[in-house]
Amino acid sequence: MRAHEGQDDDVDRPATSFEQMWADLLPMGRHPSTGGYRRYAWTPTDAGLREWFTGEAGRRGLDVTTDRAGNLWAWTGDPDSAAAAGRPGLVVGSHLDSVPDGGAFDGPLGVVSAFAALDQLRARGWSPRRPVGVACFADEEGARFGVACAGSRLLTGVLDADRARSLTDDDGTTMAEALTACGRDPGTLGADEEALRRIGTFLELHVEQGRGLVHADGGRGAAVGVASAIWPHGRWRLDLRGRADHAGTTRLADREDPMPALAAAILEARAAAGRHGSLATVGKVRVEPNGVNAIPSAVTAWLDARGPSEDGVRAVVADVGGAAGTTPVLESWTPTTAFDRGLRDRLATLLGDGDGSAAPVLPTGAGHDAGILAAAGIPSAMLFVRNPTGVSHSPAEHAEPADCLAGVAALARAVEALA
Amino acid sequence: MRAHEGQDDDVDRPATSFEQMWADLLPMGRHPSTGGYRRYAWTPTDAGLREWFTGEAGRRGLDVTTDRAGNLWAWTGDPDSAAAAGRPGLVVGSHLDSVPDGGAFDGPLGVVSAFAALDQLRARGWSPRRPVGVACFADEEGARFGVACAGSRLLTGVLDADRARSLTDDDGTTMAEALTACGRDPGTLGADEEALRRIGTFLELHVEQGRGLVHADGGRGAAVGVASAIWPHGRWRLDLRGRADHAGTTRLADREDPMPALAAAILEARAAAGRHGSLATVGKVRVEPNGVNAIPSAVTAWLDARGPSEDGVRAVVADVGGAAGTTPVLESWTPTTAFDRGLRDRLATLLGDGDGSAAPVLPTGAGHDAGILAAAGIPSAMLFVRNPTGVSHSPAEHAEPADCLAGVAALARAVEALA
Repeated sequence: MRAHEGQDDDVDRPATSFEQMWADLLPMGRHPSTGGYRRYAWTPTDAGLREWFTGEAGRRGLDVTTDRAGNLWAWTGDPDSAAAAGRPGLVVGSHLDSVPDGGAFDGPLGVVSAFAALDQLRARGWSPRRPVGVACFADEEGARFGVACAGSRLLTGVLDADRARSLTDDDGTTMAEALTACGRDPGTLGADEEALRRIGTFLELHVEQGRGLVHADGGRGAAVGVASAIWPHGRWRLDLRGRADHAGTTRLADREDPMPALAAAILEARAAAGRHGSLATVGKVRVEPNGVNAIPSAVTAWLDARGPSEDGVRAVVADVGGAAGTTPVLESWTPTTAFDRGLRDRLATLLGDGDGSAAPVLPTGAGHDAGILAAAGIPSAMLFVRNPTGVSHSPAEHAEPADCLAGVAALARAVEALA
Repeated sequence: MRAHEGQDDDVDRPATSFEQMWADLLPMGRHPSTGGYRRYAWTPTDAGLREWFTGEAGRRGLDVTTDRAGNLWAWTGDPDSAAAAGRPGLVVGSHLDSVPDGGAFDGPLGVVSAFAALDQLRARGWSPRRPVGVACFADEEGARFGVACAGSRLLTGVLDADRARSLTDDDGTTMAEALTACGRDPGTLGADEEALRRIGTFLELHVEQGRGLVHADGGRGAAVGVASAIWPHGRWRLDLRGRADHAGTTRLADREDPMPALAAAILEARAAAGRHGSLATVGKVRVEPNGVNAIPSAVTAWLDARGPSEDGVRAVVADVGGAAGTTPVLESWTPTTAFDRGLRDRLATLLGDGDGSAAPVLPTGAGHDAGILAAAGIPSAMLFVRNPTGVSHSPAEHAEPADCLAGVAALARAVEALA
């Protein structure tokens, strides 16, 4: 209706506020019964989120390009000339996809804050010394095809394009087929040196996924912190074989039931994680044929393991495989990622409370696109926004509005200082 | 092409042979990658199977009626007049639906054998003293909506129509919606006294689902046996609650993970079944949200338990609930069903080897529509056909052709004697 009232949304209106962007995203991909988000890569919901991103960029006069990995980049200025002149740009951003029944903040908070921070700086008449871009990474959660940070891994060449194309979702659809269904040519998928050259520095704001900031600063807490490192983490698949049989007629001794091996894997994941000071989770299970009166022919379970030490994580995985009687199949592995030390310290000082004490610096067990870029040699950093309950990957994930706005202000200060 | 060559398939051709009927059914609902059958109630595949049944009945001049529970009945003669005259008919038959990735024999062998037995008798010029019907029960396996023998339970009033209509499949579709999608009025669903009155005796031939007949007759084995009783059996649902959280950032101590309770249920099902001389199986599991890096918010598991003693089965269920920390929710329960003793003994004698020794008489742990009808007071019996491996509810389910034909011959002798 508003367009018919003679108002041209995209040109004359000021850029949408943080609150408006947040409200626009809230209903997208939200499951009505769980209240959680189901924003999976290369689905119609994902296409709507990408369109939202392109629209917000357009309102701000930013040019949007898509790289060969499917990530979106909204640039101010001319990032190619700047890169050629040895002044590659500063990129801020995150992702818009979610885990199954995820929360509203994991990902979108970083994208919305990036736009909002840019708006704050522009409102003050600021002009950057190098191009600034807002990024929206594709398929960060890996919820559909099983590889987390697929967009940044493809971009940097860590994930092979052939392997990515042949990854399948639970319905047997390959990523290549999903891309085609979205009107993208899967043949162009792959590392993108040109897009990478534009990024001088990458900065990702993210809701914290634990309660480190709640306890920071001697227990007084802090709204915003700076990441020190990402724990080593990986995903393994456990293929547990059995033989389908009738549940009502097959004697216990004659059964080849894969379920006891699943039970052993679940219990050992918890026990071994405790022994090795790590975290381990069996969160996804596929039972075949999954009939009430059918002894399963096969069970596939996935093990997520991480921790402060790579040796500890590997020990957990070996113990779980031993308990389940199978060799875990590695699906993805990310070694310890320490963020750029100079950048980290500069941001901690910049975002301190003004009386000389720096902002909290804390590690995380969650993987992020910033970690993938850091591992590829791009100076990268992350800001965390306080999460009062620590709950994440859940509809109950939350951050207070005041903390979110403090995150935007911190991001604006960081962009001002770095660009 | 053949119709254009002047041949009218349905009128002039003799009824299709056992082998031809078998070959016609083989591709229907077979999953190309597993080789197993996915013939679920009130799906397009099911509609094709019901159409096949109606076509075979039509070739034999049998009138097909559908009762209020959705079961199909192909009658010779006038079953209503016969019932009114105190000579209700003899029904032979089974079902055509399957468990997920089930075998070709469980169900269809009984339906195909019923038609083939009728053909043999007619070819010998036999005419029955009372109407004979061939039955195809709807939704015997309960694979889609979770209640086994739904067609015969509805027919006999054991399953309430309102409850049936509101049962949901894994996609959230109710049985009422599924019936509507198949062009049926869910409002008419319910017990059907008129259809029940027509059944004087029910006889179901079924592939054996264990190896009782392999070991029968002092180890020499037997192609065909007679059922004595169906073990008491039931299905229970275990609702295991947790709290969704990020797998990489939530400390072990802070987790409310429902997976260890699932593991406990799986292990206790096996252990308790052994202690109580019963069978127990956890064959179906639903994990929410089922993401690799998400601690599940909830797990639903189903427990199938049965055995020679009702007390033993109930003890297993209580032990599993105790181990999992939940009260199992009963979804279906069938007490011990002893088949009509006189009918059973008469068939065992009739089908003996001629030198005075009767056919083997054996119990089974599997539920069947014949058990539901028997429990409703209809004299019922079952014939089993030897299963060399005992494997059932699996693509590997098998019976030798010679044994199948022996089953048809036995069924023909039984129908001749009883009708």
